[in-house]
Amino acid sequence: MANTATNMRLKLPITCFILEIILIILFGVLVQYDNETDAKKWHGMTHGNHSDHQKDVEHKDYENDFYYRYPSFQDVHVMIFIGFGFLMTFLQRYGFGSVGFTFLIAALALQWATLMQGFFHGMHHGKIEIGVESMINADFCTGSVLISFGAVLGKTSPVQLLIMAVFEVTLFAVNEFILLSLLGTKDAGGSMTIHTFGAYFGLMVTRILYRPNLDKSKHRNSSVYHSDLFAMIGTLYLWMFWPSFNSAITAHGDDQHRTALNTYYSLAACTLATYGMSALTAHDGKLDMVHIQNAALAGGVAAGTAGEMMLTPFGSMIVGFLAGIISVLGFKYLSPILESKLKIQDTCGVHNLHGMPGVFGAIVGAVTASLATKDIYGEGMEDVFPLVYDEKVKRTAAYQGGIQAISLAVTLGIALVGGLIVGFILKLPIFGTPPDNLCFEDNIYWEVPGDEESHEGHLTTVRTEEIAMPEATEKLNS
Amino acid sequence: MANTATNMRLKLPITCFILEIILIILFGVLVQYDNETDAKKWHGMTHGNHSDHQKDVEHKDYENDFYYRYPSFQDVHVMIFIGFGFLMTFLQRYGFGSVGFTFLIAALALQWATLMQGFFHGMHHGKIEIGVESMINADFCTGSVLISFGAVLGKTSPVQLLIMAVFEVTLFAVNEFILLSLLGTKDAGGSMTIHTFGAYFGLMVTRILYRPNLDKSKHRNSSVYHSDLFAMIGTLYLWMFWPSFNSAITAHGDDQHRTALNTYYSLAACTLATYGMSALTAHDGKLDMVHIQNAALAGGVAAGTAGEMMLTPFGSMIVGFLAGIISVLGFKYLSPILESKLKIQDTCGVHNLHGMPGVFGAIVGAVTASLATKDIYGEGMEDVFPLVYDEKVKRTAAYQGGIQAISLAVTLGIALVGGLIVGFILKLPIFGTPPDNLCFEDNIYWEVPGDEESHEGHLTTVRTEEIAMPEATEKLNS
Amino acid sequence: MANTATNMRLKLPITCFILEIILIILFGVLVQYDNETDAKKWHGMTHGNHSDHQKDVEHKDYENDFYYRYPSFQDVHVMIFIGFGFLMTFLQRYGFGSVGFTFLIAALALQWATLMQGFFHGMHHGKIEIGVESMINADFCTGSVLISFGAVLGKTSPVQLLIMAVFEVTLFAVNEFILLSLLGTKDAGGSMTIHTFGAYFGLMVTRILYRPNLDKSKHRNSSVYHSDLFAMIGTLYLWMFWPSFNSAITAHGDDQHRTALNTYYSLAACTLATYGMSALTAHDGKLDMVHIQNAALAGGVAAGTAGEMMLTPFGSMIVGFLAGIISVLGFKYLSPILESKLKIQDTCGVHNLHGMPGVFGAIVGAVTASLATKDIYGEGMEDVFPLVYDEKVKRTAAYQGGIQAISLAVTLGIALVGGLIVGFILKLPIFGTPPDNLCFEDNIYWEVPGDEESHEGHLTTVRTEEIAMPEATEKLNS
Repeated sequence: MANTATNMRLKLPITCFILEIILIILFGVLVQYDNETDAKKWHGMTHGNHSDHQKDVEHKDYENDFYYRYPSFQDVHVMIFIGFGFLMTFLQRYGFGSVGFTFLIAALALQWATLMQGFFHGMHHGKIEIGVESMINADFCTGSVLISFGAVLGKTSPVQLLIMAVFEVTLFAVNEFILLSLLGTKDAGGSMTIHTFGAYFGLMVTRILYRPNLDKSKHRNSSVYHSDLFAMIGTLYLWMFWPSFNSAITAHGDDQHRTALNTYYSLAACTLATYGMSALTAHDGKLDMVHIQNAALAGGVAAGTAGEMMLTPFGSMIVGFLAGIISVLGFKYLSPILESKLKIQDTCGVHNLHGMPGVFGAIVGAVTASLATKDIYGEGMEDVFPLVYDEKVKRTAAYQGGIQAISLAVTLGIALVGGLIVGFILKLPIFGTPPDNLCFEDNIYWEVPGDEESHEGHLTTVRTEEIAMPEATEKLNS
Repeated sequence: MANTATNMRLKLPITCFILEIILIILFGVLVQYDNETDAKKWHGMTHGNHSDHQKDVEHKDYENDFYYRYPSFQDVHVMIFIGFGFLMTFLQRYGFGSVGFTFLIAALALQWATLMQGFFHGMHHGKIEIGVESMINADFCTGSVLISFGAVLGKTSPVQLLIMAVFEVTLFAVNEFILLSLLGTKDAGGSMTIHTFGAYFGLMVTRILYRPNLDKSKHRNSSVYHSDLFAMIGTLYLWMFWPSFNSAITAHGDDQHRTALNTYYSLAACTLATYGMSALTAHDGKLDMVHIQNAALAGGVAAGTAGEMMLTPFGSMIVGFLAGIISVLGFKYLSPILESKLKIQDTCGVHNLHGMPGVFGAIVGAVTASLATKDIYGEGMEDVFPLVYDEKVKRTAAYQGGIQAISLAVTLGIALVGGLIVGFILKLPIFGTPPDNLCFEDNIYWEVPGDEESHEGHLTTVRTEEIAMPEATEKLNS
Repeated sequence: MANTATNMRLKLPITCFILEIILIILFGVLVQYDNETDAKKWHGMTHGNHSDHQKDVEHKDYENDFYYRYPSFQDVHVMIFIGFGFLMTFLQRYGFGSVGFTFLIAALALQWATLMQGFFHGMHHGKIEIGVESMINADFCTGSVLISFGAVLGKTSPVQLLIMAVFEVTLFAVNEFILLSLLGTKDAGGSMTIHTFGAYFGLMVTRILYRPNLDKSKHRNSSVYHSDLFAMIGTLYLWMFWPSFNSAITAHGDDQHRTALNTYYSLAACTLATYGMSALTAHDGKLDMVHIQNAALAGGVAAGTAGEMMLTPFGSMIVGFLAGIISVLGFKYLSPILESKLKIQDTCGVHNLHGMPGVFGAIVGAVTASLATKDIYGEGMEDVFPLVYDEKVKRTAAYQGGIQAISLAVTLGIALVGGLIVGFILKLPIFGTPPDNLCFEDNIYWEVPGDEESHEGHLTTVRTEEIAMPEATEKLNS
């Protein structure tokens, strides 16, 4: 019955176990609690102990970073697992794969990201120190991998996805290091580091994995009524918690507060624009669930860089409004061209939700940074633009804006070159990728309950035959 | 194919774009960050700046209102978008409309509410200052609009809903201003301002929009197995986060703590009462999902006014228990009468979930307020009843109770008169309302995936014909 | 039409009303706000009042326990109602029962747990004082009842479940009292008190309620495509919020922080192990949704005791990795043996998700405790192991480890004996248990929307006949 090439009986366990064992060993060697997580360090100096982690000043428990960031962390966590996972369940026969592979690759990516980000963002005496902020950053990096997953959704095996995650996390950490540590770029909500990077990386991967005969699975590349409702669960959780996403790692106090507020209004304006554009671009004025599920989120992506700045609610709403318009136009007019002309098969349309809005957000960030003045930010400048605030560095706001723009170019470059290389790696025939006529189909990698078959009638019959003898079916189709 | 009258190709984009552009302009002119959100203001006095926002005392970051209220805000946000949105997905063919129109009108209402509430609740030097508390208030006001949406669910076009939202938000802000600012009423969880107002406003609108021939869509005005499960997602999120809803804008410290606790026990008692009453009122002892989905929430509504007071867990449980009984009885016996005698077609039964429990909660609040003494509240009286605490004002607890009762009457009056006027506005023939035989049907305003049709057999065939020639079908039906 | 034995028309209302009225009366007599929830107590000393609750030192609002624990409480609350509720919706015809009975028995259990835990964990002058911590503990106890519900899912009436909840909550509180108060055991995340107790209690109950003819309902004891997606909602909320669960009642500061972090990494490692094992143990390499939905959570259970200790991320990942392997092996090889040899019909496989991982977690906790040193914990030892820290008590770490091991034995003993007795009580013929051929079927206790029938064709026809004449069908089947 089963297709031997796509059989995961050994490939998946070997990949999972080897990766997890490597992770455990590296965590054992390299990782330790940070000062706010460790029992001894948080409780300050102990008799005869003179490590440099000792606290001379006593902490109050409410000053622990946990209370500043853990609620935001949990919101981000929901976005990663429920938000991304269910957003992709719109496909009629790929719900298990959407939610299940999100779960798998996110669980891997957050562990690997802890190591890679810790390695690049500052080892302490040869050790990576972790706490709630590193957990948020690990989830952020995972989000980037899931964006790329959206581009190749339904066309890859779980082993391919795990391999992709390992490479993408690594490159993500390199890019993030160049931007945040070397260039001093500001990108708290990740318009560049997360969205632009994840989208263009994934688009390049799907370009390399181009399938000329994907039409054979076309009948499954669409939604049914209830799958669209499941997808709306993903959409709404992403939409609701995006203020927490953008504000999760900004500075304490007004910065987190302002970022959440800017994102809230950007998303609201984006939603109105999305509904308007969706009706306007339909020949019969009917709303398209694809637009509602995706474009309404572009306001969160576009506020990812400038959200922590003094963008003002007014500015945030303009940004969200434009992002929604751009995104719907992309779904309607650009995606078909990308597929037919550039051979980019972008299952979830990540170019419209993360790609273009990410680039737009980066530009908004560059402009907003270049307009920063001491008169607007006061002493708050130190938190938002420390290098502009610091009188010794002598970085001007305009220079910061330039750095922001350069960072966008660097991100695009690393994403595209990285996606190119990783795409070719994923083409290796050993990873059990699905055949062209069995894309967007859970039945290859999942036990699908048989009762469902009676619901679908002859469609299922055809499918079972395809699985039984894919080569024969392929001949018939060609 | 498409019915031209309900075609949204131009109506919806024009409405969305005009409203959003007006909002953006007004935000640009009127809105600014508050002291806890603005980089300069939060970071205190700067050289040579003598605005009255300057802080002489330095803040600690953990004192920023963000940390007191943002977790509650996010819970409220989930209630608005997931809670209300999915609660209404119980209809078999209106899941897109339930979730999707909730999303649309909530995104509009929260922006408009920011302006209206800011306008009435105190401009600062001609500016509306916003932060996390105003975000919660905007979501609260949005909740009121969604309650009204529940009454007209399935019988209105998205343009009608947007128009209704604009007027309702405005009247909500007027009523809230009269109660909270002029009368000094206490209503933190909004038994009056949110639930009573939203329910009676919506009931009056649906009365004015009465459809004598709604029977033509009767076959769609019911649930299917999975739509009831989707609705339970909405129910449970409302139920779980109601403690956050009622406590979101109470005073810091014991007030938020006590309100959450009171609501928790009120809801638990309400749930037991609901299950008992549901089995008792069924001829065969089977539980009715309509009751579970709705009446179990009445305990949250009924604790909306008194939740912040020293209601005690004991009092909270009695309130919840009675609210559950009232609500099930309303669904079982009162709703049919309202429809047949008073011509009130209340799709979601908002009278039973928000109307009667809201009025009951207002009365509980009035009684609890009138029993307040210094001996019970101690110095905490200042937070709960500032006008009774203030020795200069000389308001007695009994007087406060009277004010609470008057506030209920004011709310009912503004809701009913407002609903009357707005109902007539919505009757204008230009808004693309659905015909009587196509109510509770997503296909009019949404692209519905075609695969679903094969699941439903002849029912869909009939529907497609209806859409193709509504006038002809109407003749056949009559 | 209806089976009179299972008719709930009077049984359920009587049970609900009597229980709720008893609860209300006991709350009226025994329960009051704690110092952080009461208006007067929180606001400190008042003139002429010399109760021992008065505060001489003024509190800051941000020191109120509400802000330390309420976000965690809400996460736990979601796990109880959405997590457990939806996890069990995997059954094709028991979605209403899974979500609806979870809702009912949790609403009862949290009230009764407030009283039982308050009674055992310290009355203050004859009163039970409650606040956010007691709310979390009540939800925890409720979780234990829901674990037992998982073992008997689909085979019990709502009245049986309510009776079970009353007894189980009581025994839970006794066991918790022995462990936490008498023995000084540490078990913040409840590997023993919640998971081991709930699992073995439920397994013993289902053993006593053994149905030799359960095969008659076999065709309903499986999932359909969309029911598995609903179940994934439950799985993911449990997975995402488990860090909040384990850290919800640990000490403030580093303890909450560290527990959340340990659980996060334990779960991630567990997920990789689960996917690997699921593919490895399938004959065709296909992933099994049962494993993904359940075994991926075992890492949270297994970190329940040691999560607050200095387990290190490295240790946490090993624990999670092993827990995932154990759990999948249990589902694959042990559950069939338990059913065929020991006559334990464990619907949800709670032995694999809560039983074995709970025991494993208890052992990990004992070992980790026995290795505790002042050098590792510093002054933080006081929070984690107060009896080892306290120089007057002279408890060694090894002794603490021994106590932890004894606590596991005590928990197993009380759970098994308790389950035995409660199982026999539930066998009483008055509670309206479903007949063998109508298990896993919503139609007995719920009004199920009729439209669903057309989706299922002849299966439903057969079912309706069964309901009409169960005895006749039983004869035919035998």
